[in-house]
Amino acid sequence: MSAIGTSEYMKIRRYVMNLILHAGKDPVQIPTINDLSEKFGVSRPTVSKAMKELTSEGYIIGRRGIGSFTNPAKISPSSFGRQLPLIGISLGNGLMVHLDKYYGNILAELLKKIVAMPAIVHLVSTGSSDKKQIICDIMNEQLNALVVVDGNSFVSDLRKMGLKVVTTTETHRLTPGSVSPDYDAWGYLCGKQLLKENRRNIVFLHDKEPWNASYNGFRRAFREAGAPLNEKFFLKDYRSSLTELKNMVHYGVQVDAVVDTLWVNNEVAEILMADNPELVKTCALVHNAFSAPQNSGFHEICYEIPFEQIAEETAELLRLQFAGDKAGMDIRKIPMKMIIK
Amino acid sequence: MSAIGTSEYMKIRRYVMNLILHAGKDPVQIPTINDLSEKFGVSRPTVSKAMKELTSEGYIIGRRGIGSFTNPAKISPSSFGRQLPLIGISLGNGLMVHLDKYYGNILAELLKKIVAMPAIVHLVSTGSSDKKQIICDIMNEQLNALVVVDGNSFVSDLRKMGLKVVTTTETHRLTPGSVSPDYDAWGYLCGKQLLKENRRNIVFLHDKEPWNASYNGFRRAFREAGAPLNEKFFLKDYRSSLTELKNMVHYGVQVDAVVDTLWVNNEVAEILMADNPELVKTCALVHNAFSAPQNSGFHEICYEIPFEQIAEETAELLRLQFAGDKAGMDIRKIPMKMIIK
Repeated sequence: MSAIGTSEYMKIRRYVMNLILHAGKDPVQIPTINDLSEKFGVSRPTVSKAMKELTSEGYIIGRRGIGSFTNPAKISPSSFGRQLPLIGISLGNGLMVHLDKYYGNILAELLKKIVAMPAIVHLVSTGSSDKKQIICDIMNEQLNALVVVDGNSFVSDLRKMGLKVVTTTETHRLTPGSVSPDYDAWGYLCGKQLLKENRRNIVFLHDKEPWNASYNGFRRAFREAGAPLNEKFFLKDYRSSLTELKNMVHYGVQVDAVVDTLWVNNEVAEILMADNPELVKTCALVHNAFSAPQNSGFHEICYEIPFEQIAEETAELLRLQFAGDKAGMDIRKIPMKMIIK
Repeated sequence: MSAIGTSEYMKIRRYVMNLILHAGKDPVQIPTINDLSEKFGVSRPTVSKAMKELTSEGYIIGRRGIGSFTNPAKISPSSFGRQLPLIGISLGNGLMVHLDKYYGNILAELLKKIVAMPAIVHLVSTGSSDKKQIICDIMNEQLNALVVVDGNSFVSDLRKMGLKVVTTTETHRLTPGSVSPDYDAWGYLCGKQLLKENRRNIVFLHDKEPWNASYNGFRRAFREAGAPLNEKFFLKDYRSSLTELKNMVHYGVQVDAVVDTLWVNNEVAEILMADNPELVKTCALVHNAFSAPQNSGFHEICYEIPFEQIAEETAELLRLQFAGDKAGMDIRKIPMKMIIK
């Protein structure tokens, strides 16, 4: 195996687990150490060590003179009696290490909806950021389908190789067989609300993908009202955005609202208050419900990411792909709720 | 590294990710290739390759003549401005490959509650079933705390090394700092219900840990009523259980209820109906709400695993441990709901 690949142990382990799963109630013979060594490009002593551990854990039963067999009794009885599909979930390119609020919640809802299909879920972890290696790692998992969260550089390759794939994404660059929140529609809705509240000088933090996904919706709402937004107020970079905002407030620029797509919690409120405490009465904060400051005193317009619906629609596209229905390659945009505080 | 350890690539990757996370907004210098090679016992060319990939992905920025630095701009802005704790979740011994309904749901709820603490979650994956190696792998993750789901052979060792650990488990062997559903109380509750329905001949499938967690509750309810249960009806093994049940029905043994802790869906109903369709009128099915057959026609008593509350109490124990409160080592049993259909 390549030095940066998935560990040898996990390769053998996953292979045996897949054998058990697909065998259902019947023990299935496992290839010999020589065969496994060749198949996975792993040294014989390493395969031997992994097999010994799997045996001591009870996943494999050795039969003297015959060979090694999977032990169906070791998998959860809930998987018995049916051939459940094995569905992988890959976060980004499968190298995701730390899960924040966004990834924790989207993964949670996907897990719930996919095991209820019913299916068995495998969290895909690749051993490299190299596209070829990722594709190879994923194909080795013997999955029946894959959900890719916020990554699609390798999706079309996997589909060409016959794998069913659904992507869920935060961006507005939608590809077939994908589910995403409808940021554009929400931006339009929120823009209309800001117009109704007579707010015209609006600062947008972080005009960069995917953070700016809703900005075109805002632009459209204001353009339609004949009051196009000031493009100078669309700030570019996270760090400089906050400094620029600080300067704008300092120099007395009238700011009616700040659209914060960054989930930075109290920082925007603090910047506004530090220089001009009166802003709490006139300026609105627009942000994710997750990062809403506690009792900030500001007028707030929040959006909620519809994690549960995204996961439900993802499972639905999977079901359609399994049924061979073309609608499994639909592009589904999920409306987001606007909450005014 | 040991041949069966976590892959070299992931070791280096996680180390750098942790550096970024703990550095917050400030770039932090990364040890040299020589230092990393020594620290992790990974060959220089391998470290060099991993560093090159991390650089091309933007996680590391090289400064000519000075060294390599973490790039804070690469982590989600939502993690900025605060030092979020890094909390690991380990399923079993960290080798779990396939998630079924139980593991999918418990992991989902834990993810939701822990990212909301707020904290960053890391799904712990170990490279061996060897206890020493697991402990070593986990300590290398630089976690602030760990949640162990259904595994506790190494928990006390980790605690001795200073790691905060909470376990959530399905078994009734409760250790300090753990959360579990109260199977015993539910068995007692359900036993009372069966008594009320005048059911005495009750077959219990799979009298084996952890599947039998509720059986002592049943025994107690019937003992208190002066009508102890027939111990011959407590069947031992999954496979032989279903065959024994088939035989009992075939030979005309009066079966008033079958307690199925196996989540096997329609199999029990099918076995009962196959030999004596009249049983649908007299025999009750007791099982998990997950595995309830659709419109089976049988009288059903179900239990629901309180995944959400288990996760909430787990997060609560973590919070208490972080606050240095002794109550963080409490044993918390969560009541289960009984649903009668």
